[in-house]
Amino acid sequence: MAHLLHLDSSITGDRSVSRKLTARAAKNWLAAHPDGTATYRDLAADPIPHLGSKAWTARITPSGERTPEQAAAAKVGESLVAEVLAADVVVLGLPLYNYGAPSSVKAWVDWLIAGAGEDPTVLGGRELVVLASRGGGYGEGAPRHGWDHAEGWLPHGLSLTGLAPRFVTAEFTLAGVNPALAEFQGAAAESLAAAEKEIDGLWASVGV
Amino acid sequence: MAHLLHLDSSITGDRSVSRKLTARAAKNWLAAHPDGTATYRDLAADPIPHLGSKAWTARITPSGERTPEQAAAAKVGESLVAEVLAADVVVLGLPLYNYGAPSSVKAWVDWLIAGAGEDPTVLGGRELVVLASRGGGYGEGAPRHGWDHAEGWLPHGLSLTGLAPRFVTAEFTLAGVNPALAEFQGAAAESLAAAEKEIDGLWASVGV
Repeated sequence: MAHLLHLDSSITGDRSVSRKLTARAAKNWLAAHPDGTATYRDLAADPIPHLGSKAWTARITPSGERTPEQAAAAKVGESLVAEVLAADVVVLGLPLYNYGAPSSVKAWVDWLIAGAGEDPTVLGGRELVVLASRGGGYGEGAPRHGWDHAEGWLPHGLSLTGLAPRFVTAEFTLAGVNPALAEFQGAAAESLAAAEKEIDGLWASVGV
Repeated sequence: MAHLLHLDSSITGDRSVSRKLTARAAKNWLAAHPDGTATYRDLAADPIPHLGSKAWTARITPSGERTPEQAAAAKVGESLVAEVLAADVVVLGLPLYNYGAPSSVKAWVDWLIAGAGEDPTVLGGRELVVLASRGGGYGEGAPRHGWDHAEGWLPHGLSLTGLAPRFVTAEFTLAGVNPALAEFQGAAAESLAAAEKEIDGLWASVGV
């Protein structure tokens, strides 16, 4: 039976564009997989800890010799790994905060790699769709082209695992909020419509 | 009286290169400022939370109207901001984990900007020295040139504040640990020596 892992990380609740996009993707995936099941994890509402020294020392200590703190830390990573292993498709919401991924998403990647043991490539071989949102414009020719360090980093951060993210990105999401970006409201609407169209095409043929 | 803020983020304890480098920098700074004082914060041992929705809603709610949770979140940011404001010099240890900054460092930047209020440039006008370490080689011509997304991101992440990091970087720090990097042990030793020399020159003339 097909299984979806749906992850959000935005801290802006109802105003979040990435949450709207992951919800749309999850709905489409479930429509295309009527027998499919889904797990939902909200990295903002239920934060996972930063990877710490206990997880690091657990990694280099045989499981039977770990302290209770090391064992608990190892379990955090192993449970996040198990969640990915159970999924055929992972959908991740990735807003851009201060030109980088939310710290919660960086922590998730760090735990996955720490928790996967000797061979993190076990995490590969599944689809990873990243619904990204960013407040301004970062395309070719924009003054801040190259400042989106979330999309730049994630494929490298996950490279050890074999998970290769496919990005669907909506930009200028603050055009209706930040007066300095008011002139980009049209571009924002176009970007969002293009993202939604791309999401709607992702699993369109699966159910046919 | 001159004041130093000394921050570490490595999770590898005694094996950490960035911790050795920040310790060296702090020692040098105190030697050059005999009346100086220092605050130490260990982002790995005493983790700060991820920036969350309570901090975000606190930011857009007048201080008198915040819920207790919002007020507590606002206080986290304000206390981290106050720590920077009290310092003339900030020394930050920045190891590279999975090609990005530790999530604890991203969280620190997110809290600073959330906590600084309307004008984050109050955080600028002080020296920020970043002691960076990375396990492999990322210089021009290296296969992974461009994969160090910690150094790439941090100046952008802090750009709203006016804090402009000066990087002192030791690389190939895993050359003595990872057999695949064994041939780079000489490069590692050279990189470390160059970093130490640069640190030793940072405040060398101040005390004269």
